[in-house]
Amino acid sequence: MIPVLEIFGPTVQGEGAVIGRKTMFVRTAGCDYRCSWCDSAFTWDGSAKEDIRKMTPEEIYQTLLEAGGDTFDHVTISGGNPALLAGIGELLALFKEKGIESALETQGSKYQPWFKFIDELTISPKPPSSGMDTDVDKLSFILNETKGQSVSLKVVIFNEEDLAYAKSIHQRFPDVPFYLQVGNDELDEKDDSRLLGHLARKYEWLIDRVMPDPEFKRVRVLPQLHTFVWGNKKGV
Amino acid sequence: MIPVLEIFGPTVQGEGAVIGRKTMFVRTAGCDYRCSWCDSAFTWDGSAKEDIRKMTPEEIYQTLLEAGGDTFDHVTISGGNPALLAGIGELLALFKEKGIESALETQGSKYQPWFKFIDELTISPKPPSSGMDTDVDKLSFILNETKGQSVSLKVVIFNEEDLAYAKSIHQRFPDVPFYLQVGNDELDEKDDSRLLGHLARKYEWLIDRVMPDPEFKRVRVLPQLHTFVWGNKKGV
Ligand code: SF4
Ligand code: SF4
Repeated sequence: MIPVLEIFGPTVQGEGAVIGRKTMFVRTAGCDYRCSWCDSAFTWDGSAKEDIRKMTPEEIYQTLLEAGGDTFDHVTISGGNPALLAGIGELLALFKEKGIESALETQGSKYQPWFKFIDELTISPKPPSSGMDTDVDKLSFILNETKGQSVSLKVVIFNEEDLAYAKSIHQRFPDVPFYLQVGNDELDEKDDSRLLGHLARKYEWLIDRVMPDPEFKRVRVLPQLHTFVWGNKKGV
Repeated sequence: MIPVLEIFGPTVQGEGAVIGRKTMFVRTAGCDYRCSWCDSAFTWDGSAKEDIRKMTPEEIYQTLLEAGGDTFDHVTISGGNPALLAGIGELLALFKEKGIESALETQGSKYQPWFKFIDELTISPKPPSSGMDTDVDKLSFILNETKGQSVSLKVVIFNEEDLAYAKSIHQRFPDVPFYLQVGNDELDEKDDSRLLGHLARKYEWLIDRVMPDPEFKRVRVLPQLHTFVWGNKKGV
């Protein structure tokens, strides 16, 4: 059984390697981290405890069909940290059987053998501003196990210290496609147009810092597209 | 000799398959099309005729180094239509020698043997709102010649008719990665924050049209990131 908090879509993937891709989302409950700026804290802080549904892979698939009908062929699994859940492997097998592609994001604190069946795996180690520590050996282990797959590293950037951290990760794993993402430090901003302007300026700041830096060459710098469109709204 | 209008960067690639990638830009002069909403009309309408420099590949490379130093390993060639220029082949050979990756965008009206040496080739056939006609046989020929390479199709969308056209192209070439891009219909808007809000709404419209459509499954829907950051400014 997989503890699920949200199933929605189809919508666009707002981040990372398959940014813009039409996808459904399955959000699992539970995380081993407590990032200071977590935008999905309801997955682990107890506030949405009543909403968690323990579901079988078949139930998840049926709920995806109810929401997305025949309009999708791609599902993104996010959390929380879905890498806590051994049961995801069975869900991936069902997706494979149904011809559905999968993407999954995890911070890289845990490894699961089913990582090998993810079509687009994003490992997003958390920078110092999160308040969390990175287990670089575990990261290295995961990247080694998934070599040859479509796997990328993504670091969210809030400040200069995060950028220095991102550089150290990029230098440690120079062959892994590397994404820098603008951190959203205005999670409570309700005025979408103010948020949009603010995030556009933050994105420009990040670009300005990365472009002149010879130690960031083979990198991609991206905002979160969904916040540009829907602000801080959830489930879109 | 290659007729060049702009060399600038490093900056982020704002569109398509390598969106967000740190890259330099080389913009060539001349186009066989005259799209109604062309955002680079100065490459073909005579208004920048004085600025065209006929350059050798070595001169282009030196100018790239002057602008970008040792901060880049990727160059995007755009136009105009660079596929008019046989001489690009020699430039690509020089890039290969220097360890520089290349991306190139063309509308698909002309084929060049050097297409095979582009690391990321984007073919962007123009929809009805452009006022141009698509040579689907040529498109088919190009996609066949470049099979196995990293090549994608991208269609800019301004209205419903463009969306129907995009669908017909996607259905004709279902195996080619397919991008839908929000058209910028406010090329004269100087107020960046108004433009930003406008384009975010256009992006939302495009998402709303594509998401429920079972005939668009394996697609990516993207805005032009650079207009989100720099509005209608050129050379950034
Ligand atoms: S790892 Fe992700 S879900 Fe967990 S606390 Fe950090 S941001 Fe939130
Ligand atoms: S093909 Fe491109 S450069 Fe040529 S007119 Fe159309 S938009 Fe402008």
